[in-house]
Amino acid sequence: MRKIWYNGKVLDESEAKLSIYDSALMFGDMVFEMTRSFNKQHFMLHEHLKRLQRSMRCLSINCEVSFTTLEKACHLITEANSYEMRDDDEHRLMINVSRGILSIYSGVVGVQQGPTVMITDFPLKWTVRGFGKLYDEGVNAVIPSQRAIPSRYLDPKLKHRSRLHLQVANIEVSKYTGDNNWALLLDEDGFIAEGTGDNFFIVKDGVVYTPEGRDILRGVSREYVIALCGMLSIECIEKNIEPYDVLDADEAFMTGTPFCILPVTQLNHKCIGNSSIGYYTKLLLDEWGNSVGVDIIKQIKLWNTTSTDSLNVTPYMFKEMS
Amino acid sequence: MRKIWYNGKVLDESEAKLSIYDSALMFGDMVFEMTRSFNKQHFMLHEHLKRLQRSMRCLSINCEVSFTTLEKACHLITEANSYEMRDDDEHRLMINVSRGILSIYSGVVGVQQGPTVMITDFPLKWTVRGFGKLYDEGVNAVIPSQRAIPSRYLDPKLKHRSRLHLQVANIEVSKYTGDNNWALLLDEDGFIAEGTGDNFFIVKDGVVYTPEGRDILRGVSREYVIALCGMLSIECIEKNIEPYDVLDADEAFMTGTPFCILPVTQLNHKCIGNSSIGYYTKLLLDEWGNSVGVDIIKQIKLWNTTSTDSLNVTPYMFKEMS
Amino acid sequence: MRKIWYNGKVLDESEAKLSIYDSALMFGDMVFEMTRSFNKQHFMLHEHLKRLQRSMRCLSINCEVSFTTLEKACHLITEANSYEMRDDDEHRLMINVSRGILSIYSGVVGVQQGPTVMITDFPLKWTVRGFGKLYDEGVNAVIPSQRAIPSRYLDPKLKHRSRLHLQVANIEVSKYTGDNNWALLLDEDGFIAEGTGDNFFIVKDGVVYTPEGRDILRGVSREYVIALCGMLSIECIEKNIEPYDVLDADEAFMTGTPFCILPVTQLNHKCIGNSSIGYYTKLLLDEWGNSVGVDIIKQIKLWNTTSTDSLNVTPYMFKEMS
Amino acid sequence: MRKIWYNGKVLDESEAKLSIYDSALMFGDMVFEMTRSFNKQHFMLHEHLKRLQRSMRCLSINCEVSFTTLEKACHLITEANSYEMRDDDEHRLMINVSRGILSIYSGVVGVQQGPTVMITDFPLKWTVRGFGKLYDEGVNAVIPSQRAIPSRYLDPKLKHRSRLHLQVANIEVSKYTGDNNWALLLDEDGFIAEGTGDNFFIVKDGVVYTPEGRDILRGVSREYVIALCGMLSIECIEKNIEPYDVLDADEAFMTGTPFCILPVTQLNHKCIGNSSIGYYTKLLLDEWGNSVGVDIIKQIKLWNTTSTDSLNVTPYMFKEMS
Amino acid sequence: MRKIWYNGKVLDESEAKLSIYDSALMFGDMVFEMTRSFNKQHFMLHEHLKRLQRSMRCLSINCEVSFTTLEKACHLITEANSYEMRDDDEHRLMINVSRGILSIYSGVVGVQQGPTVMITDFPLKWTVRGFGKLYDEGVNAVIPSQRAIPSRYLDPKLKHRSRLHLQVANIEVSKYTGDNNWALLLDEDGFIAEGTGDNFFIVKDGVVYTPEGRDILRGVSREYVIALCGMLSIECIEKNIEPYDVLDADEAFMTGTPFCILPVTQLNHKCIGNSSIGYYTKLLLDEWGNSVGVDIIKQIKLWNTTSTDSLNVTPYMFKEMS
Amino acid sequence: MRKIWYNGKVLDESEAKLSIYDSALMFGDMVFEMTRSFNKQHFMLHEHLKRLQRSMRCLSINCEVSFTTLEKACHLITEANSYEMRDDDEHRLMINVSRGILSIYSGVVGVQQGPTVMITDFPLKWTVRGFGKLYDEGVNAVIPSQRAIPSRYLDPKLKHRSRLHLQVANIEVSKYTGDNNWALLLDEDGFIAEGTGDNFFIVKDGVVYTPEGRDILRGVSREYVIALCGMLSIECIEKNIEPYDVLDADEAFMTGTPFCILPVTQLNHKCIGNSSIGYYTKLLLDEWGNSVGVDIIKQIKLWNTTSTDSLNVTPYMFKEMS
Repeated sequence: MRKIWYNGKVLDESEAKLSIYDSALMFGDMVFEMTRSFNKQHFMLHEHLKRLQRSMRCLSINCEVSFTTLEKACHLITEANSYEMRDDDEHRLMINVSRGILSIYSGVVGVQQGPTVMITDFPLKWTVRGFGKLYDEGVNAVIPSQRAIPSRYLDPKLKHRSRLHLQVANIEVSKYTGDNNWALLLDEDGFIAEGTGDNFFIVKDGVVYTPEGRDILRGVSREYVIALCGMLSIECIEKNIEPYDVLDADEAFMTGTPFCILPVTQLNHKCIGNSSIGYYTKLLLDEWGNSVGVDIIKQIKLWNTTSTDSLNVTPYMFKEMS
Repeated sequence: MRKIWYNGKVLDESEAKLSIYDSALMFGDMVFEMTRSFNKQHFMLHEHLKRLQRSMRCLSINCEVSFTTLEKACHLITEANSYEMRDDDEHRLMINVSRGILSIYSGVVGVQQGPTVMITDFPLKWTVRGFGKLYDEGVNAVIPSQRAIPSRYLDPKLKHRSRLHLQVANIEVSKYTGDNNWALLLDEDGFIAEGTGDNFFIVKDGVVYTPEGRDILRGVSREYVIALCGMLSIECIEKNIEPYDVLDADEAFMTGTPFCILPVTQLNHKCIGNSSIGYYTKLLLDEWGNSVGVDIIKQIKLWNTTSTDSLNVTPYMFKEMS
Repeated sequence: MRKIWYNGKVLDESEAKLSIYDSALMFGDMVFEMTRSFNKQHFMLHEHLKRLQRSMRCLSINCEVSFTTLEKACHLITEANSYEMRDDDEHRLMINVSRGILSIYSGVVGVQQGPTVMITDFPLKWTVRGFGKLYDEGVNAVIPSQRAIPSRYLDPKLKHRSRLHLQVANIEVSKYTGDNNWALLLDEDGFIAEGTGDNFFIVKDGVVYTPEGRDILRGVSREYVIALCGMLSIECIEKNIEPYDVLDADEAFMTGTPFCILPVTQLNHKCIGNSSIGYYTKLLLDEWGNSVGVDIIKQIKLWNTTSTDSLNVTPYMFKEMS
Repeated sequence: MRKIWYNGKVLDESEAKLSIYDSALMFGDMVFEMTRSFNKQHFMLHEHLKRLQRSMRCLSINCEVSFTTLEKACHLITEANSYEMRDDDEHRLMINVSRGILSIYSGVVGVQQGPTVMITDFPLKWTVRGFGKLYDEGVNAVIPSQRAIPSRYLDPKLKHRSRLHLQVANIEVSKYTGDNNWALLLDEDGFIAEGTGDNFFIVKDGVVYTPEGRDILRGVSREYVIALCGMLSIECIEKNIEPYDVLDADEAFMTGTPFCILPVTQLNHKCIGNSSIGYYTKLLLDEWGNSVGVDIIKQIKLWNTTSTDSLNVTPYMFKEMS
Repeated sequence: MRKIWYNGKVLDESEAKLSIYDSALMFGDMVFEMTRSFNKQHFMLHEHLKRLQRSMRCLSINCEVSFTTLEKACHLITEANSYEMRDDDEHRLMINVSRGILSIYSGVVGVQQGPTVMITDFPLKWTVRGFGKLYDEGVNAVIPSQRAIPSRYLDPKLKHRSRLHLQVANIEVSKYTGDNNWALLLDEDGFIAEGTGDNFFIVKDGVVYTPEGRDILRGVSREYVIALCGMLSIECIEKNIEPYDVLDADEAFMTGTPFCILPVTQLNHKCIGNSSIGYYTKLLLDEWGNSVGVDIIKQIKLWNTTSTDSLNVTPYMFKEMS
Repeated sequence: MRKIWYNGKVLDESEAKLSIYDSALMFGDMVFEMTRSFNKQHFMLHEHLKRLQRSMRCLSINCEVSFTTLEKACHLITEANSYEMRDDDEHRLMINVSRGILSIYSGVVGVQQGPTVMITDFPLKWTVRGFGKLYDEGVNAVIPSQRAIPSRYLDPKLKHRSRLHLQVANIEVSKYTGDNNWALLLDEDGFIAEGTGDNFFIVKDGVVYTPEGRDILRGVSREYVIALCGMLSIECIEKNIEPYDVLDADEAFMTGTPFCILPVTQLNHKCIGNSSIGYYTKLLLDEWGNSVGVDIIKQIKLWNTTSTDSLNVTPYMFKEMS
C-alpha cells in the first residue's frame, strides 16, 4: 500500500483524511501543491514548495515545518512508494497544509494542534485518462457564464482549496454539445483568466501571449513555458487577452502540470487558426520533452492505451491539474 | 464517546473525517447546516434541512438520501449522544454533504461512491465560550478591507464551505485594538453584507432593517427574527444599509444560531445609539426565549461561568455559527 | 399580395426595404413596435404606439407623423391585408421608425427626407411555429456567458434595433444539449434581466415576482401580466431576482407578444418547482385568454398542427417576439 | 447611375436596400467595412477585407463568398463606377454583410437565402464636407456623458452596425457651444476609448500614444499611423490614456479613413499644447501623403472649395468614417 | 457690519477666515450646514444641527460644543445681524465645523486647539439672484460626463466640503448652449443622483418619486417635500430613477434650501411633460409657502426686481444652496 | 515672524488665512504644491510649479500669475524667512491657489477678485517628527477598508484639496495595534494605489516596480526615484501591483517630499523580505543624498534628537507630505 507523510509521520494512504472540524473543511482553508515527475525525477519541486510557503504566509497559516523538512518528506514518500509504481509510471505528489482544527472545536476533538501537513503520492496516469486524443483533436475552450472570482475578493495566486466556483464552471460546460469541451473562465472585465486547472496561451505572428498574472494561478507550468520561450528566443508577453484576440490568433494552448501543454483548437466551437496543433505549440512541447527526457505526448497516449480501467469520466470531474 | 451518522452508518465521532481526495477538500465543494436545540429539542431543523437540499440542487450534488432519512438520522444521532450530554447542555448538529471523491482519483482510492453525508453532534456551549459579557458590552462591528464575494461569483445563499475569505476577514479584524471586535463585511457596492457567521440588523425609529438577501446567507436565525417582528407587530424591512445608516440607527444587533441575537453597540469604534443593548434587541431576544422556553442570555452566561476549560480563544477562531 | 404603409403611402410588401445609407442600417438607429391581434382585434395598440413615441423622443428622432395618423395607418393596413389572411389567422404588425438617411449621404441618395415610418403586417402563426409543445414541456432557460448591456450604455427600455448582443446570446445557447433551450440573460450584477425577446417571472408562495424595469424592455405583455395579477388579487412585485431565487421558486414563466405566456420548467437544466406548467402560470394564461376571447394554447397548438410548411427553424433564429 | 454588387449581381445603386425582415434591421446584425482610394487606387483593401472576414467568423455569420471573390467584386464595382466620378474624385467603398432574413420571417418573404453581401461605391468628397478648416483650427474633442459600451457586452473590434450609442453621443455633443466639437468617448474606467468614427492619439515628449485596442475599433488608419511611426522611428505605445494625459500632452490627433488624420487642439474647450496642429501630427500626415502620392490636406480643402452643394450638415450627422 | 460666531466669540464678519494649516483647507476636512429663514424665523434649524452632529460623529471630528450651545449661537448671531438686514430680507446661516489645525503644523501656528466652529449670516437674496424666471421657464437639467462619487468612497450623506467634483460638473455644464442649464449628476449605475446643490424629484401618474438616499445628500428640503406629500396625501416613493424615467414623467423639480422648489422642464434639452411648471410642483410649492407664511415665488421675483447689484453671475458660480 | 506671499503682497504668516466664502473652503476647490530644500536650496521647484499650473488648467482655475512670478515669489519668501531658520533647518514651501470667492458671495464679501495665490514657508523638521526610527524599523503598511477614489470621479493627479477620504483612511488605520502603521490604499480593482501622502514601490529580483500613474498623485519624489533608478541602471517599471506582489517582493518603500524614502517592512503585519531596510532602498536613499549633498537619514534623526517640543502626534495627524 502507498504511504503518506502526515505531520512528520509516515502512514498508510488510507489515513489520508482530515477531521470535519479542521478549518480546511470548515472554510476551504487549506493551501496545497501538486507536482509530477519525469522519469521519476521530481520536476520543479523547489518552485512548488516555495509557492506553498508563500501561500501560507499570505494567509497567516503559521506552519512550523521548515522548507528543508518539506523537501525531504517529499523525497521520502516518493522513495517509499517506488515499489508501488510500475516502470512506466510517474509520481504525482499532493502536498496539503490546512490551518488545523478550529479552536472552538477543541472541546469536541481535544487539544488543538495547529496546521496539518500531509503529502500523498500516486501514479500520474490516472489524472490524464483519455487525454491522448486531445493532442490530435485539440481542446474546444468554452466560456461559461461563471466568471473567475476577482483576486481582490479571494486571490487565486494563493493556491488554496476554496474554489467551488471552478466546479460550478465545470458542471456548466458539461452541458454543451460535443467532446473535448474545457471551461475557460473570463474575469470581471471580460479578459481571459484561466481554465479550471490550467493556464492559457495564444500565439500570433510568432509571438506568444498569456494573460497577466492577476485573476489566475501563476502556474508552475505557465512559468516554465515562459522560460522555454526565452530559451527558444520566442517573444512571450503577459497581456490582457479578449475572446476576440483568441479568434484572431494563429494558435492557442493550455498548460497544466499533468499534461504540460494541450493544444486548443476551438473557442466556443469556432476555429482558432487552422484547427490543428500549432507550430509553436508543438515546438514548445517538444522542447519541454527534450529538457526532461520524456516524449510527453507518447507517454500519455501509451497510458491511455494500456490502461485497463474503463471508468466513466464525466467532463466536470477530470480536472485537478495545474 | 459521541456518535456520528456517516452515509447511513452510526460511527464513533473519531471517524468524522473526509478523504483528502474528496471534492470537499479539493474544491471546498461541500454544503452543510448547523443547528441547535433549546431544552434539547431541535430548533428549525426542518428549515435547515430544506435549505440543505436546495444547496445541493443548486450545485448539482446528486445525493440520494431522502429528506425523511436525513431528518430521522438527525434525531437518531441526537438520541445516541444524549448520554454524553450534561443536563444543562444543548445539542449542536453539523450536517455535511460533500460531492464525494473526484472521479480522477478513483484510481487512487477505489470505487467512487458519490456524495458523503455526515451528521455530527456536540455540546453547543463550546461555541459560545466567552460570549456572556457581549450581552452587556455589545459587539464592536469592524469593517475590514476584505469585501464579501459578490453572489454572482459564488453565491453565499448556498451554504457551502468555499469561504476562505471569511477567515481572511477574521484575521484582519484580529489586528484591531480593543475587545469584542467582530468582522462586518461590506459588499462590492459598500452596503453592509454580513459577519463571518452572522446576519446584521439595525433599528431606527421603531422599525427594524436588515440587508437584502443578496450577498449574504439568508440565515435561519435571520428568518426567525423577521418572523418574531411579525408576531410583535414591529415593521421589519429588507433594505440596502450603508455604514452611515448604522451610525444613524438607534440600535443594532447580529443574529446567529448558537447565540440567537447579540447586541452591536459600536461600528468601527464609534457608538451606535446609546452604546448599550437596545430596547428592541432585548425585546426580540426575550420573545425568542419565551417561544422556546429558554432564558438565552442566562444560559450562555451560566455556561461561561461553569466552564472549566480555559482555552485561549483568539478572535479569528471563534466563528462558525450561523 | 400583402400591403405596407410607408411614409404615408400604401405599397406592396415587397417594398418593405430600407436604404443601406439609412441611419437604421448604419447605426442600428431605428425604433419599432410589434403587436398582435386576438380574433383579429388589435391588442394594446395604444400602449405600443405610446411607447414608440417615447422611444423616438428619447432618441431625438423627430418624426412628424402624429399619434392619430399612426393609429389610423395601423388599422388601414390591417384592413388592406384582411383578404390575405385565413380565418384562423391573427395579425402581427411591425411598426418601424428610422432616423432616415444620414446627411453625409445626401450626396449619394439625393435629398434627405427625415425619418422613415414603415408599417408591415403578416400572419402571427409564423412566429410561433413549434411552440405548442412548450406549453407541456416548458422552456429550459439557459444563462449564457453574454450579459445584458447595462441600460446606462444603451437603454433597452427604448425599443430599438441596436441589439446584436441578443443574437450573440441566441447563438451561444444553440450550442447546448437538449431541446427547448431559451437564453435568459443576467445583468451586470448577476440579476435576471430578460430573454432575447421575452420577460421573465417567478412565483413563490403565491406571490409573483418579475425583475425591476431597469436592464430590460418593459414589455407590453409584462405590463399586462402585472395588470392581470391585480385583477386576480395576486400580489405582483418588481424585484431583483437571482438564479438562486429561480431555483427556490415554485414556478416560472416568460412573457412575449406572440405567445403571451410560456412556462419555464428548468434553469440551466435544473428543475424549477415540479417541472410542469405551474398553477399560477396556467391561471394567468387562462385569464388572459378569457379577457380576449381566445384559447391561447389551443390556438398555437392548432397552428402547429395545420401548418404545412416544414422549414427548419434553428434555435437562434426563432426569436423576435416581445 | 452608379452600380452596386449585390450577392454576385451588379445592380443600380437605387437597389442598395435591405428587407425590413433581415437580421441587419432586426438586430443591427450586419458587419461592414468602408474604404477609400488615393489617386483612385484602393488603400489597404486587403486589410479591410481580412477584418470583415474576422467580424463574420466571430459572429458566426456563415457567408460563403470567398475572399478572392470579395476582392474582385470591389475592383469590379470601382471600375463600373469610374465613369461616374470626376477626375479629382476618390472612391469610397462600403461593403456590408448581413446575416440575412430571420428564419421566422421566411413565411413572410419566402425562401431564406442566408447572408447578403452588398458593395457600394461613391465619391469620398461628400463625407469630408467642411473638414478643410479643421486642419487649421483643430477639433475640440468633447467627452460626452455617454460611455463606450465595454467590449465584453458588445465588441467594437468587430465592425458591426449595432451602435446606436454612438449616435446618442453625437446628439449629446451637438448641444455644446462652439464649432468643431467632436465626441470622444470614455470607457467604463474613464480611459479614452474612441470617437464616433475615429481613433485617438496623443504625443508627449516625442512619443506617440494611443489607447489599448480594447474598447475601440482597431481602425485601419490607426494601424497605418502605428506603421508610419515605425517607418519614421517614432516610438508609438498602446496605453491607457486619461483626460489628464491629454491635457498634459504636447499634441493630439484623430484618425479615420476619409480624412486620415485630423489635429485635435482642445479637450473640453481646454487647450492641448499650443492649440495648433502639432509637429508630429503634421509629420505623420505628410508622410502618409507621400506614401500614397496625395496631398491630403490640399485635396480636402479643394473639395470644400469647389463643392457646389450647400447642404446643412448638423454636427451629429456627419460622422461615418473610420 | 455683520457679525459671526467663532468658537464662542462674536467677531466681525471680516474675521470669517480659516488658517491655511487647518485640516479644512488641507483636506476639505470640514462639515457644515446652511439654513434659511422665512419671515426671519429659522426653518428646520433643529434638523440642520442634528445632521451637523451626525456628520461630525461619522468623521470623528470631536467637537465639544453642545447642541444647545450651537442652537443658541445661531439665534445670537441672527439677532446681532438683524439691524443689518432690510425688512424684506431673510437670514442665511452658514455653520462650519473644521477638524482644526493639523498637529504637524502646531510648530508653525502654535498650540493646537481642536475643531473650529464658525457661524456666519447674510441676506438670502444674494444666493437666488436671477432665479425668478426659472419658476416660469423651468430648469434644463443637463447630465454631465462627471459622475457622482459613489458613497463608499466618500459619503455625500455627510455634509462635508471635499467636493471639488461638483465644481467640475458645474464647469462642464457651463459649456452647453442655452440658458437655465443646471447639472444633474448620474451615479455609477446610471441612476439620477443629485444636482450640485439640490435634490431631484419626478411626478408620474400622481405619484412623486425621488432617488434613494444613497449617493446623495439627504437634503432637509428633500425631507420636507416628502413630509409635505404626506400632509397632502400624495404618495412619495424613494426609488432608483433613470433618465428614461425622467422623460417618461409628467413633471420634475429640484429642491434646495434657498429656493425650496424649482420646476425642471427639460432633461438634456428634451421636454419633460408639457414643459411648464407642473401641477404637483406648484401644489407642493404653494403648500410649503402656506406652511411658512411666505409666497416663495413672489419673494424671489421681488428680490430679483429690486436688486440693484448687477454682478455677472456665470453658471458654475451660482450654486451653493442645498 | 515668518512671511508669506499673498497675491503679490508680502504679509506676516499670521495672515495665512482664507475667507470662508472662498471656493477653497466651500468645495475643497484649491490646488497646491509643497516643496522642500536641501541645504536650503529648493529641490525640483520647477517641476512642482509646472504641476501646479497643470492642475489649474485642468480645473479651469484661471490664475493670471505667471510662472516666472511664481518662481520669483518662492525665492523671495525663502529669502525673507532665512533669518527665522536655524542653521540646520530646511525650508518647506506651501503654494496654494484657490479659485477665489464664489460669485454668489460677492454680495457678502465685496468685489470678487478671482484666484488667491498664497505661498508660505516653515521649517521642514516639524513634519518629520519621530520619523527617525522608521529608517530602522520600517513602516507597517496597513490596507484600510477605505479605497482610493477612482480617478474618473476626481483625479488625484491634480494636486487638489478635496481629499477628505485620506483623513478617513488615516483615522481607520489609527485603530490598529502596533506602531509605525501607515495607511496604504487600494484602488477599486484591488491594486495598490498610494498612501495618504506618499507613493509606493517594491523591489523584486533587482527590478523596481511602482503602481501605474492612474489612481495616484504622480509625486515629484516618485519621479525622482524613477530617475535615480535610471542613473543607477536599475530597471524601474510602472505596473499594477497587488498585495500578493508586495508579500512576494524582496523589499518595499514609500516616497514623499519631506522624508524622500522610507522603508516598508510589513504589509498588514506580515513581513516583506527580511523585515529590515532593503538593499535597493538604501542604495536609492544614499544616491539621493549624494545628489543633493545631504545625509537624509542622519538629518532627520538629528532633528528628532534635538527637537525640544514634545507634542503628542497621533498617527492620523502627521501626514501631509507628498
